[in-house]
Amino acid sequence: MDDEGGIQRQGRAAYDLPGLLIGSEGTLGLVTGARLRLLPLPRHRAALLAHFPGVEPLAEAVSEAVASGAVPARMEFMDPACAGAVEDYLRMGLPRGRALLLVETDGEEADLVEEELSLVEASARRHGAEVVRAAGEAEAEALWRARRAVSPALGRIRPKRVNEDIAVPRSALPQVVREIEALGKAFGLVVVQFGHIGDGNLHPNILFDPRKESEEKVWELAHEIARVALRHGGVLSGEHGIGLMKRDFMLEAVDPETLGALHRVKEALDPLGLFNPGKVLP
Amino acid sequence: MDDEGGIQRQGRAAYDLPGLLIGSEGTLGLVTGARLRLLPLPRHRAALLAHFPGVEPLAEAVSEAVASGAVPARMEFMDPACAGAVEDYLRMGLPRGRALLLVETDGEEADLVEEELSLVEASARRHGAEVVRAAGEAEAEALWRARRAVSPALGRIRPKRVNEDIAVPRSALPQVVREIEALGKAFGLVVVQFGHIGDGNLHPNILFDPRKESEEKVWELAHEIARVALRHGGVLSGEHGIGLMKRDFMLEAVDPETLGALHRVKEALDPLGLFNPGKVLP
Repeated sequence: MDDEGGIQRQGRAAYDLPGLLIGSEGTLGLVTGARLRLLPLPRHRAALLAHFPGVEPLAEAVSEAVASGAVPARMEFMDPACAGAVEDYLRMGLPRGRALLLVETDGEEADLVEEELSLVEASARRHGAEVVRAAGEAEAEALWRARRAVSPALGRIRPKRVNEDIAVPRSALPQVVREIEALGKAFGLVVVQFGHIGDGNLHPNILFDPRKESEEKVWELAHEIARVALRHGGVLSGEHGIGLMKRDFMLEAVDPETLGALHRVKEALDPLGLFNPGKVLP
Repeated sequence: MDDEGGIQRQGRAAYDLPGLLIGSEGTLGLVTGARLRLLPLPRHRAALLAHFPGVEPLAEAVSEAVASGAVPARMEFMDPACAGAVEDYLRMGLPRGRALLLVETDGEEADLVEEELSLVEASARRHGAEVVRAAGEAEAEALWRARRAVSPALGRIRPKRVNEDIAVPRSALPQVVREIEALGKAFGLVVVQFGHIGDGNLHPNILFDPRKESEEKVWELAHEIARVALRHGGVLSGEHGIGLMKRDFMLEAVDPETLGALHRVKEALDPLGLFNPGKVLP
Protein backbone atom coordinates (compact mmCIF):
# COMPACT_ATOMS: atom_id res chain seq x y z
CA MET A 1 0.00 0.00 0.00
CA ASP A 2 1.06 3.50 -0.71
CA ASP A 3 0.68 6.26 1.81
CA GLU A 4 -0.96 8.58 -0.68
CA GLY A 5 -4.67 8.45 -1.29
CA GLY A 6 -5.87 7.34 -4.67
CA ILE A 7 -2.69 5.89 -6.10
CA GLN A 8 -3.30 2.33 -5.09
CA ARG A 9 -6.89 2.39 -6.25
CA GLN A 10 -5.87 3.59 -9.69
CA GLY A 11 -2.85 1.33 -9.61
CA ARG A 12 -4.49 -2.02 -9.18
CA ALA A 13 -8.01 -2.62 -10.29
CA ALA A 14 -8.59 -6.34 -10.90
CA TYR A 15 -5.91 -6.59 -13.62
CA ASP A 16 -2.55 -4.91 -13.31
CA LEU A 17 -2.96 -2.38 -16.13
CA PRO A 18 -0.11 -0.12 -14.96
CA GLY A 19 2.18 -3.16 -14.87
CA LEU A 20 1.07 -3.95 -18.40
CA LEU A 21 1.97 -0.45 -19.58
CA ILE A 22 5.38 -0.58 -17.94
CA GLY A 23 7.81 -1.89 -20.52
CA SER A 24 5.28 -1.71 -23.36
CA GLU A 25 7.41 1.03 -24.95
CA GLY A 26 4.48 3.35 -25.48
CA THR A 27 2.57 0.89 -27.62
CA LEU A 28 -0.40 0.46 -25.25
CA GLY A 29 -1.00 4.00 -24.06
CA LEU A 30 0.49 7.26 -23.03
CA VAL A 31 1.70 7.84 -19.46
CA THR A 32 0.82 11.43 -18.64
CA GLY A 33 1.82 11.45 -15.00
CA ALA A 34 3.55 9.33 -12.40
CA ARG A 35 4.05 9.52 -8.67
CA LEU A 36 7.31 8.07 -7.48
CA ARG A 37 8.18 6.65 -4.13
CA LEU A 38 11.68 7.72 -3.16
CA LEU A 39 14.01 5.79 -0.90
CA PRO A 40 16.72 7.45 1.17
CA LEU A 41 20.29 6.91 -0.02
CA PRO A 42 22.10 4.16 1.88
CA ARG A 43 24.39 5.42 4.63
CA HIS A 44 27.53 3.54 3.56
CA ARG A 45 29.22 2.63 0.27
CA ALA A 46 32.36 0.74 -0.67
CA ALA A 47 33.89 0.07 -4.07
CA LEU A 48 36.62 -1.97 -5.71
CA LEU A 49 38.25 -2.49 -9.07
CA ALA A 50 39.26 -6.05 -9.97
CA HIS A 51 41.18 -6.82 -13.12
CA PHE A 52 41.29 -10.26 -14.66
CA PRO A 53 43.37 -12.00 -17.32
CA GLY A 54 40.21 -12.28 -19.43
CA VAL A 55 36.45 -11.89 -19.55
CA GLU A 56 35.69 -15.48 -18.84
CA PRO A 57 37.21 -15.73 -15.35
CA LEU A 58 35.59 -12.35 -14.60
CA ALA A 59 32.17 -13.71 -15.50
CA GLU A 60 32.87 -16.81 -13.42
CA ALA A 61 33.80 -14.65 -10.44
CA VAL A 62 30.62 -12.58 -10.74
CA SER A 63 28.48 -15.67 -11.01
CA GLU A 64 30.17 -17.16 -7.96
CA ALA A 65 30.04 -13.95 -5.88
CA VAL A 66 26.31 -13.57 -6.42
CA ALA A 67 25.72 -17.24 -5.71
CA SER A 68 27.61 -16.81 -2.44
CA GLY A 69 25.12 -14.18 -1.28
CA ALA A 70 26.57 -10.84 -2.42
CA VAL A 71 24.00 -8.42 -3.83
CA PRO A 72 26.13 -5.42 -4.82
CA ALA A 73 24.48 -2.16 -5.79
CA ARG A 74 26.56 -2.07 -8.97
CA MET A 75 28.65 -4.64 -10.82
CA GLU A 76 29.96 -3.30 -14.09
CA PHE A 77 32.41 -4.96 -16.41
CA MET A 78 34.52 -4.05 -19.44
CA ASP A 79 36.42 -6.44 -21.63
CA PRO A 80 40.10 -5.64 -22.43
CA ALA A 81 39.23 -3.79 -25.65
CA CYS A 82 36.67 -1.62 -23.88
CA ALA A 83 38.98 -0.96 -20.93
CA GLY A 84 41.79 -0.06 -23.34
CA ALA A 85 39.56 2.43 -25.13
CA VAL A 86 38.65 4.06 -21.83
CA GLU A 87 42.32 4.26 -20.84
CA ASP A 88 43.23 5.85 -24.20
CA TYR A 89 40.48 8.36 -23.57
CA LEU A 90 41.02 9.20 -19.89
CA ARG A 91 44.70 8.30 -19.25
CA MET A 92 43.90 7.37 -15.67
CA GLY A 93 46.25 4.41 -15.34
CA LEU A 94 43.91 1.47 -15.94
CA PRO A 95 45.81 -1.79 -16.54
CA ARG A 96 46.20 -2.77 -20.23
CA GLY A 97 45.00 -6.06 -21.69
CA ARG A 98 42.86 -6.88 -18.66
CA ALA A 99 39.14 -7.35 -18.18
CA LEU A 100 37.82 -4.93 -15.56
CA LEU A 101 35.16 -5.44 -12.92
CA LEU A 102 33.87 -2.44 -10.96
CA VAL A 103 31.82 -3.22 -7.88
CA GLU A 104 29.97 -1.10 -5.36
CA THR A 105 28.18 -2.36 -2.29
CA ASP A 106 25.99 -0.18 -0.08
CA GLY A 107 23.80 -0.39 2.97
CA GLU A 108 22.98 0.96 6.41
CA GLU A 109 25.74 -0.83 8.32
CA ALA A 110 29.37 -0.14 7.39
CA ASP A 111 30.45 -3.63 8.54
CA LEU A 112 27.96 -5.41 6.32
CA VAL A 113 28.86 -3.20 3.36
CA GLU A 114 32.55 -4.15 3.72
CA GLU A 115 31.67 -7.79 4.34
CA GLU A 116 29.66 -7.94 1.13
CA LEU A 117 32.50 -6.36 -0.83
CA SER A 118 34.86 -8.93 0.68
CA LEU A 119 32.70 -11.74 -0.72
CA VAL A 120 33.18 -10.27 -4.18
CA GLU A 121 36.88 -9.70 -3.59
CA ALA A 122 37.39 -13.30 -2.52
CA SER A 123 35.57 -14.64 -5.60
CA ALA A 124 37.61 -12.33 -7.82
CA ARG A 125 40.91 -13.46 -6.33
CA ARG A 126 39.93 -17.10 -6.69
CA HIS A 127 39.60 -16.42 -10.41
CA GLY A 128 42.99 -14.81 -10.79
CA ALA A 129 42.09 -11.15 -10.35
CA GLU A 130 44.15 -8.40 -8.85
CA VAL A 131 41.91 -6.28 -6.65
CA VAL A 132 42.20 -2.62 -5.67
CA ARG A 133 39.76 -1.31 -3.09
CA ALA A 134 38.80 2.32 -3.45
CA ALA A 135 40.04 4.26 -0.41
CA GLY A 136 37.22 6.69 0.13
CA GLU A 137 34.71 8.56 -2.02
CA ALA A 138 37.20 10.26 -4.37
CA GLU A 139 38.78 7.00 -5.49
CA ALA A 140 35.38 5.37 -5.87
CA GLU A 141 34.21 8.33 -7.94
CA ALA A 142 37.22 7.92 -10.27
CA LEU A 143 36.18 4.30 -10.94
CA TRP A 144 32.68 5.34 -11.92
CA ARG A 145 34.08 8.11 -14.10
CA ALA A 146 35.87 5.36 -16.05
CA ARG A 147 32.60 3.50 -16.51
CA ARG A 148 30.80 6.60 -17.71
CA ALA A 149 33.54 7.25 -20.26
CA VAL A 150 32.81 4.03 -22.16
CA SER A 151 30.49 5.56 -24.77
CA PRO A 152 32.68 8.49 -25.82
CA ALA A 153 35.79 6.26 -25.68
CA LEU A 154 34.34 3.67 -28.08
CA GLY A 155 33.56 6.38 -30.64
CA ARG A 156 37.31 6.79 -31.15
CA ILE A 157 37.78 3.17 -32.31
CA ARG A 158 35.20 3.18 -35.10
CA PRO A 159 32.83 5.96 -36.14
CA LYS A 160 29.65 3.88 -35.74
CA ARG A 161 28.42 1.19 -33.42
CA VAL A 162 25.46 -1.04 -32.71
CA ASN A 163 24.86 -1.32 -28.98
CA GLU A 164 23.34 -4.69 -28.09
CA ASP A 165 21.41 -5.06 -24.84
CA ILE A 166 20.91 -8.71 -24.04
CA ALA A 167 20.27 -10.09 -20.56
CA VAL A 168 21.01 -13.68 -19.60
CA PRO A 169 20.90 -15.81 -16.45
CA ARG A 170 24.01 -15.02 -14.45
CA SER A 171 25.04 -18.66 -14.42
CA ALA A 172 25.27 -18.53 -18.23
CA LEU A 173 27.46 -15.41 -18.29
CA PRO A 174 30.86 -17.07 -18.87
CA GLN A 175 29.58 -19.14 -21.77
CA VAL A 176 27.64 -16.24 -23.31
CA VAL A 177 30.60 -13.88 -23.15
CA ARG A 178 32.84 -16.54 -24.74
CA GLU A 179 30.40 -17.21 -27.58
CA ILE A 180 30.03 -13.53 -28.37
CA GLU A 181 33.79 -13.06 -28.45
CA ALA A 182 34.04 -15.96 -30.88
CA LEU A 183 31.24 -14.54 -33.06
CA GLY A 184 33.01 -11.18 -33.32
CA LYS A 185 36.15 -12.94 -34.55
CA ALA A 186 34.23 -15.15 -36.97
CA PHE A 187 32.52 -12.09 -38.50
CA GLY A 188 35.79 -10.16 -38.63
CA LEU A 189 34.20 -7.23 -36.80
CA VAL A 190 35.31 -5.36 -33.69
CA VAL A 191 33.11 -6.42 -30.78
CA VAL A 192 33.66 -4.97 -27.32
CA GLN A 193 31.66 -6.09 -24.33
CA PHE A 194 30.68 -4.20 -21.23
CA GLY A 195 27.56 -3.95 -19.12
CA HIS A 196 25.70 -4.38 -15.89
CA ILE A 197 27.06 -7.84 -15.35
CA GLY A 198 25.53 -8.20 -11.88
CA ASP A 199 22.11 -8.19 -13.55
CA GLY A 200 23.28 -10.42 -16.39
CA ASN A 201 22.71 -7.42 -18.66
CA LEU A 202 25.43 -7.25 -21.32
CA HIS A 203 26.07 -4.60 -23.94
CA PRO A 204 28.12 -6.25 -26.65
CA ASN A 205 28.94 -3.37 -29.03
CA ILE A 206 29.74 -3.91 -32.66
CA LEU A 207 32.06 -1.09 -33.74
CA PHE A 208 32.30 -0.43 -37.45
CA ASP A 209 33.16 2.01 -40.17
CA PRO A 210 30.30 2.14 -42.69
CA ARG A 211 32.72 3.24 -45.42
CA LYS A 212 34.73 0.05 -45.11
CA GLU A 213 32.50 -2.54 -43.44
CA SER A 214 29.16 -3.94 -44.57
CA GLU A 215 26.28 -2.74 -42.45
CA GLU A 216 24.32 -5.80 -43.46
CA LYS A 217 26.99 -7.98 -41.90
CA VAL A 218 26.85 -5.86 -38.73
CA TRP A 219 23.11 -6.51 -38.39
CA GLU A 220 23.61 -10.18 -39.08
CA LEU A 221 26.08 -10.28 -36.21
CA ALA A 222 23.66 -8.36 -33.96
CA HIS A 223 21.05 -10.99 -34.74
CA GLU A 224 23.50 -13.79 -33.93
CA ILE A 225 24.27 -12.13 -30.59
CA ALA A 226 20.55 -12.00 -29.81
CA ARG A 227 20.34 -15.71 -30.62
CA VAL A 228 23.14 -16.44 -28.15
CA ALA A 229 21.05 -14.76 -25.44
CA LEU A 230 17.91 -16.70 -26.36
CA ARG A 231 19.76 -20.02 -26.51
CA HIS A 232 20.94 -19.46 -22.95
CA GLY A 233 17.51 -18.60 -21.58
CA GLY A 234 18.02 -14.85 -21.82
CA VAL A 235 16.04 -12.01 -23.33
CA LEU A 236 16.52 -9.68 -26.29
CA SER A 237 16.69 -6.58 -24.16
CA GLY A 238 17.72 -5.86 -20.60
CA GLU A 239 16.78 -2.21 -20.55
CA HIS A 240 16.78 -0.54 -23.97
CA GLY A 241 13.67 -2.24 -25.31
CA ILE A 242 12.65 -3.97 -28.53
CA GLY A 243 11.59 -0.96 -30.60
CA LEU A 244 12.13 -1.42 -34.32
CA MET A 245 15.66 -2.82 -34.15
CA LYS A 246 14.74 -6.11 -32.48
CA ARG A 247 11.13 -6.32 -33.54
CA ASP A 248 11.75 -9.14 -35.99
CA PHE A 249 13.90 -11.05 -33.48
CA MET A 250 10.69 -11.41 -31.43
CA LEU A 251 9.62 -14.17 -33.80
CA GLU A 252 12.46 -16.25 -32.39
CA ALA A 253 12.06 -15.09 -28.79
CA VAL A 254 8.36 -15.77 -28.31
CA ASP A 255 6.25 -18.76 -29.25
CA PRO A 256 3.34 -18.16 -31.67
CA GLU A 257 0.63 -18.54 -28.98
CA THR A 258 2.24 -15.94 -26.74
CA LEU A 259 2.80 -13.64 -29.69
CA GLY A 260 -0.89 -13.98 -30.54
CA ALA A 261 -1.80 -13.02 -26.98
CA LEU A 262 0.51 -9.98 -27.15
CA HIS A 263 -1.16 -8.86 -30.39
CA ARG A 264 -4.62 -9.30 -28.89
CA VAL A 265 -3.66 -7.25 -25.83
CA LYS A 266 -2.34 -4.53 -28.13
CA GLU A 267 -5.61 -4.53 -30.10
CA ALA A 268 -7.65 -4.52 -26.90
CA LEU A 269 -6.00 -1.39 -25.51
CA ASP A 270 -5.16 0.38 -28.76
CA PRO A 271 -7.81 -0.71 -31.27
CA LEU A 272 -6.99 2.16 -33.64
CA GLY A 273 -3.24 1.49 -33.53
CA LEU A 274 -2.42 5.03 -32.45
CA PHE A 275 0.28 4.31 -29.87
CA ASN A 276 3.85 4.03 -31.18
CA PRO A 277 2.73 2.19 -34.30
CA GLY A 278 4.96 -0.50 -35.72
CA LYS A 279 7.11 -0.91 -32.63
CA VAL A 280 7.81 -4.02 -30.53
CA LEU A 281 5.43 -6.56 -32.13
CA PRO A 282 6.40 -8.15 -35.46
CA MET B 1 17.20 -11.97 -14.07
CA ASP B 2 16.60 -15.43 -12.86
CA ASP B 3 19.35 -18.00 -12.72
CA GLU B 4 17.28 -20.65 -14.47
CA GLY B 5 17.18 -20.84 -18.23
CA GLY B 6 13.94 -20.12 -19.98
CA ILE B 7 11.99 -18.56 -17.15
CA GLN B 8 12.83 -14.99 -17.86
CA ARG B 9 12.22 -15.43 -21.55
CA GLN B 10 8.78 -16.82 -20.91
CA GLY B 11 8.28 -14.35 -18.12
CA ARG B 12 8.70 -11.12 -19.94
CA ALA B 13 8.07 -10.87 -23.63
CA ALA B 14 7.28 -7.27 -24.59
CA TYR B 15 4.20 -7.04 -22.36
CA ASP B 16 4.13 -8.45 -18.86
CA LEU B 17 1.61 -11.22 -19.41
CA PRO B 18 2.51 -13.17 -16.24
CA GLY B 19 2.05 -9.96 -14.25
CA LEU B 20 -1.34 -9.55 -15.88
CA LEU B 21 -2.35 -13.06 -14.86
CA ILE B 22 -1.24 -12.56 -11.27
CA GLY B 23 -4.24 -11.28 -9.35
CA SER B 24 -6.66 -11.90 -12.22
CA GLU B 25 -8.33 -14.59 -10.12
CA GLY B 26 -8.27 -17.18 -12.86
CA THR B 27 -10.31 -15.05 -15.27
CA LEU B 28 -7.56 -14.65 -17.90
CA GLY B 29 -6.04 -18.10 -18.01
CA LEU B 30 -4.98 -21.15 -16.12
CA VAL B 31 -1.60 -21.34 -14.39
CA THR B 32 -0.40 -24.90 -14.84
CA GLY B 33 3.08 -24.51 -13.39
CA ALA B 34 5.23 -22.07 -11.51
CA ARG B 35 8.87 -21.90 -10.48
CA LEU B 36 9.46 -20.09 -7.23
CA ARG B 37 12.54 -18.30 -6.06
CA LEU B 38 13.09 -19.01 -2.39
CA LEU B 39 14.84 -16.71 0.05
CA PRO B 40 16.65 -17.98 3.13
CA LEU B 41 14.92 -17.29 6.45
CA PRO B 42 16.33 -14.25 8.25
CA ARG B 43 18.84 -15.09 10.99
CA HIS B 44 17.17 -13.09 13.78
CA ARG B 45 13.62 -12.35 14.91
CA ALA B 46 12.11 -10.32 17.73
CA ALA B 47 8.48 -9.85 18.73
CA LEU B 48 6.32 -7.75 21.02
CA LEU B 49 2.74 -7.41 22.15
CA ALA B 50 1.44 -3.89 22.71
CA HIS B 51 -2.00 -3.25 24.15
CA PHE B 52 -3.80 0.05 23.75
CA PRO B 53 -6.85 1.71 25.30
CA GLY B 54 -8.50 1.54 21.85
CA VAL B 55 -8.05 0.88 18.17
CA GLU B 56 -7.52 4.47 17.20
CA PRO B 57 -4.32 5.10 19.16
CA LEU B 58 -3.10 1.70 17.96
CA ALA B 59 -3.61 2.71 14.34
CA GLU B 60 -1.89 6.04 15.04
CA ALA B 61 1.07 4.21 16.55
CA VAL B 62 1.39 1.88 13.54
CA SER B 63 1.18 4.78 11.12
CA GLU B 64 3.85 6.66 13.08
CA ALA B 65 6.16 3.65 13.51
CA VAL B 66 6.19 2.94 9.78
CA ALA B 67 6.68 6.62 8.96
CA SER B 68 9.67 6.60 11.33
CA GLY B 69 11.35 3.90 9.23
CA ALA B 70 10.29 0.60 10.80
CA VAL B 71 9.45 -2.13 8.27
CA PRO B 72 8.40 -5.04 10.48
CA ALA B 73 7.95 -8.48 9.02
CA ARG B 74 4.52 -8.69 10.66
CA MET B 75 2.19 -6.15 12.25
CA GLU B 76 -1.12 -7.67 13.23
CA PHE B 77 -3.87 -6.04 15.18
CA MET B 78 -7.07 -7.05 16.95
CA ASP B 79 -9.70 -4.73 18.31
CA PRO B 80 -10.93 -5.32 21.90
CA ALA B 81 -13.88 -7.49 20.79
CA CYS B 82 -11.61 -9.69 18.69
CA ALA B 83 -8.95 -9.92 21.42
CA GLY B 84 -11.66 -10.81 23.95
CA ALA B 85 -12.94 -13.61 21.72
CA VAL B 86 -9.42 -15.02 21.40
CA GLU B 87 -8.94 -14.85 25.17
CA ASP B 88 -12.26 -16.64 25.75
CA TYR B 89 -11.06 -19.30 23.36
CA LEU B 90 -7.44 -19.76 24.45
CA ARG B 91 -7.39 -18.52 28.09
CA MET B 92 -3.81 -17.36 27.70
CA GLY B 93 -4.02 -14.19 29.81
CA LEU B 94 -4.54 -11.52 27.15
CA PRO B 95 -5.65 -8.19 28.68
CA ARG B 96 -9.42 -7.50 28.49
CA GLY B 97 -10.94 -4.45 26.82
CA ARG B 98 -7.72 -3.54 25.05
CA ALA B 99 -6.74 -3.32 21.40
CA LEU B 100 -3.78 -5.58 20.65
CA LEU B 101 -0.87 -5.05 18.34
CA LEU B 102 1.50 -7.94 17.58
CA VAL B 103 4.75 -7.07 15.90
CA GLU B 104 7.67 -9.09 14.60
CA THR B 105 10.87 -7.71 13.12
CA ASP B 106 13.52 -9.82 11.46
CA GLY B 107 16.84 -9.53 9.68
CA GLU B 108 20.44 -10.60 9.45
CA GLU B 109 21.80 -8.47 12.30
CA ALA B 110 20.42 -8.96 15.82
CA ASP B 111 21.12 -5.32 16.73
CA LEU B 112 19.16 -3.95 13.81
CA VAL B 113 16.28 -6.32 14.49
CA GLU B 114 16.04 -5.07 18.09
CA GLU B 115 16.49 -1.46 17.00
CA GLU B 116 13.61 -1.75 14.56
CA LEU B 117 11.38 -3.27 17.23
CA SER B 118 12.34 -0.41 19.55
CA LEU B 119 11.04 2.09 16.99
CA VAL B 120 7.67 0.36 17.13
CA GLU B 121 7.78 0.13 20.92
CA ALA B 122 8.50 3.84 21.24
CA SER B 123 5.61 4.75 18.93
CA ALA B 124 3.30 2.42 20.84
CA ARG B 125 4.23 3.92 24.21
CA ARG B 126 3.72 7.44 22.89
CA HIS B 127 0.15 6.41 22.11
CA GLY B 128 -0.58 5.03 25.56
CA ALA B 129 0.27 1.37 25.04
CA GLU B 130 1.68 -1.08 27.49
CA VAL B 131 4.32 -3.17 25.78
CA VAL B 132 5.53 -6.69 26.48
CA ARG B 133 8.52 -7.94 24.54
CA ALA B 134 8.57 -11.67 23.86
CA ALA B 135 11.54 -13.22 25.66
CA GLY B 136 12.64 -15.80 23.14
CA GLU B 137 11.02 -18.01 20.54
CA ALA B 138 8.49 -19.74 22.82
CA GLU B 139 6.91 -16.49 23.97
CA ALA B 140 6.90 -15.15 20.42
CA GLU B 141 5.24 -18.35 19.24
CA ALA B 142 2.49 -17.93 21.87
CA LEU B 143 1.70 -14.48 20.45
CA TRP B 144 1.28 -15.84 16.95
CA ARG B 145 -0.84 -18.67 18.27
CA ALA B 146 -3.23 -15.99 19.55
CA ARG B 147 -3.36 -14.42 16.10
CA ARG B 148 -4.05 -17.74 14.42
CA ALA B 149 -6.91 -18.42 16.85
CA VAL B 150 -8.93 -15.43 15.58
CA SER B 151 -11.04 -17.37 13.08
CA PRO B 152 -12.18 -20.20 15.36
CA ALA B 153 -12.65 -17.74 18.26
CA LEU B 154 -15.01 -15.49 16.29
CA GLY B 155 -17.20 -18.46 15.41
CA ARG B 156 -18.22 -18.63 19.08
CA ILE B 157 -19.73 -15.09 19.08
CA ARG B 158 -22.11 -15.54 16.14
CA PRO B 159 -22.58 -18.58 13.91
CA LYS B 160 -21.89 -16.72 10.66
CA ARG B 161 -19.63 -13.94 9.51
CA VAL B 162 -18.71 -11.86 6.49
CA ASN B 163 -14.96 -11.30 6.38
CA GLU B 164 -14.12 -7.99 4.71
CA ASP B 165 -10.67 -7.48 3.22
CA ILE B 166 -10.08 -3.82 2.52
CA ALA B 167 -6.67 -2.19 2.23
CA VAL B 168 -6.10 1.51 2.77
CA PRO B 169 -3.15 3.89 2.90
CA ARG B 170 -1.55 3.53 6.32
CA SER B 171 -1.95 7.23 7.01
CA ALA B 172 -5.73 6.77 6.74
CA LEU B 173 -5.85 3.83 9.16
CA PRO B 174 -7.01 5.66 12.29
CA GLN B 175 -9.88 7.38 10.48
CA VAL B 176 -10.89 4.22 8.60
CA VAL B 177 -10.96 2.10 11.75
CA ARG B 178 -13.05 4.76 13.51
CA GLU B 179 -15.57 5.01 10.67
CA ILE B 180 -16.01 1.24 10.51
CA GLU B 181 -16.58 1.07 14.27
CA ALA B 182 -19.25 3.75 13.92
CA LEU B 183 -20.89 1.94 10.99
CA GLY B 184 -21.16 -1.27 13.00
CA LYS B 185 -22.93 0.59 15.79
CA ALA B 186 -25.23 2.42 13.36
CA PHE B 187 -26.27 -0.86 11.75
CA GLY B 188 -26.72 -2.57 15.11
CA LEU B 189 -24.45 -5.42 14.03
CA VAL B 190 -21.38 -6.95 15.70
CA VAL B 191 -18.28 -5.80 13.84
CA VAL B 192 -14.84 -6.89 14.97
CA GLN B 193 -11.70 -5.67 13.30
CA PHE B 194 -8.34 -7.33 12.91
CA GLY B 195 -5.80 -7.64 10.14
CA HIS B 196 -2.39 -7.06 8.70
CA ILE B 197 -2.30 -3.48 9.81
CA GLY B 198 1.31 -2.95 8.73
CA ASP B 199 0.14 -3.33 5.13
CA GLY B 200 -3.00 -1.28 5.72
CA ASN B 201 -4.93 -4.50 5.12
CA LEU B 202 -7.95 -4.71 7.46
CA HIS B 203 -10.38 -7.53 7.96
CA PRO B 204 -13.49 -5.97 9.49
CA ASN B 205 -15.73 -8.96 10.22
CA ILE B 206 -19.47 -8.68 10.47
CA LEU B 207 -20.64 -11.41 12.85
CA PHE B 208 -24.29 -12.39 12.66
CA ASP B 209 -26.90 -14.98 13.34
CA PRO B 210 -28.96 -15.55 10.20
CA ARG B 211 -31.93 -16.70 12.33
CA LYS B 212 -32.13 -13.34 14.08
CA GLU B 213 -30.38 -10.80 11.86
CA SER B 214 -31.15 -9.75 8.30
CA GLU B 215 -28.55 -10.98 5.85
CA GLU B 216 -29.51 -8.17 3.51
CA LYS B 217 -28.52 -5.68 6.16
CA VAL B 218 -25.21 -7.51 6.65
CA TRP B 219 -24.40 -7.12 2.95
CA GLU B 220 -25.43 -3.49 3.04
CA LEU B 221 -22.94 -2.96 5.85
CA ALA B 222 -20.23 -4.85 3.92
CA HIS B 223 -20.85 -2.50 1.01
CA GLU B 224 -20.59 0.54 3.30
CA ILE B 225 -17.29 -0.75 4.66
CA ALA B 226 -15.96 -1.10 1.10
CA ARG B 227 -17.04 2.49 0.46
CA VAL B 228 -15.05 3.65 3.49
CA ALA B 229 -11.95 2.06 1.94
CA LEU B 230 -12.57 3.68 -1.45
CA ARG B 231 -13.25 7.10 0.07
CA HIS B 232 -9.86 6.95 1.75
CA GLY B 233 -7.96 5.95 -1.38
CA GLY B 234 -7.97 2.25 -0.56
CA VAL B 235 -8.94 -0.85 -2.48
CA LEU B 236 -11.77 -3.38 -2.20
CA SER B 237 -9.47 -6.27 -1.50
CA GLY B 238 -6.04 -6.58 0.06
CA GLU B 239 -5.57 -10.29 -0.54
CA HIS B 240 -8.83 -12.24 -0.85
CA GLY B 241 -9.83 -10.88 -4.25
CA ILE B 242 -13.00 -9.53 -5.86
CA GLY B 243 -14.64 -12.79 -6.91
CA LEU B 244 -18.43 -12.61 -6.92
CA MET B 245 -18.87 -10.95 -3.55
CA LYS B 246 -17.34 -7.60 -4.50
CA ARG B 247 -17.90 -7.73 -8.23
CA ASP B 248 -20.61 -5.11 -8.20
CA PHE B 249 -18.58 -2.84 -5.88
CA MET B 250 -16.13 -2.54 -8.80
CA LEU B 251 -18.54 -0.08 -10.41
CA GLU B 252 -17.72 2.32 -7.58
CA ALA B 253 -14.02 1.44 -7.40
CA VAL B 254 -13.05 1.88 -11.05
CA ASP B 255 -13.89 4.63 -13.52
CA PRO B 256 -15.84 3.59 -16.66
CA GLU B 257 -12.83 3.99 -19.01
CA THR B 258 -10.64 1.73 -16.89
CA LEU B 259 -13.47 -0.78 -16.54
CA GLY B 260 -13.80 -0.78 -20.33
CA ALA B 261 -10.09 -1.49 -20.66
CA LEU B 262 -10.36 -4.36 -18.15
CA HIS B 263 -13.22 -5.87 -20.15
CA ARG B 264 -11.27 -5.55 -23.39
CA VAL B 265 -8.25 -7.27 -21.84
CA LYS B 266 -10.52 -10.08 -20.65
CA GLU B 267 -11.97 -10.48 -24.14
CA ALA B 268 -8.51 -10.38 -25.71
CA LEU B 269 -7.15 -13.25 -23.63
CA ASP B 270 -10.35 -15.22 -23.08
CA PRO B 271 -12.52 -14.55 -26.15
CA LEU B 272 -14.77 -17.53 -25.41
CA GLY B 273 -15.25 -16.58 -21.74
CA LEU B 274 -14.04 -19.94 -20.48
CA PHE B 275 -11.94 -18.81 -17.53
CA ASN B 276 -13.75 -18.38 -14.21
CA PRO B 277 -16.82 -16.89 -15.90
CA GLY B 278 -18.74 -14.17 -14.11
CA LYS B 279 -16.03 -13.34 -11.61
CA VAL B 280 -14.29 -10.02 -10.91
CA LEU B 281 -15.71 -7.81 -13.68
CA PRO B 282 -19.25 -6.45 -13.30
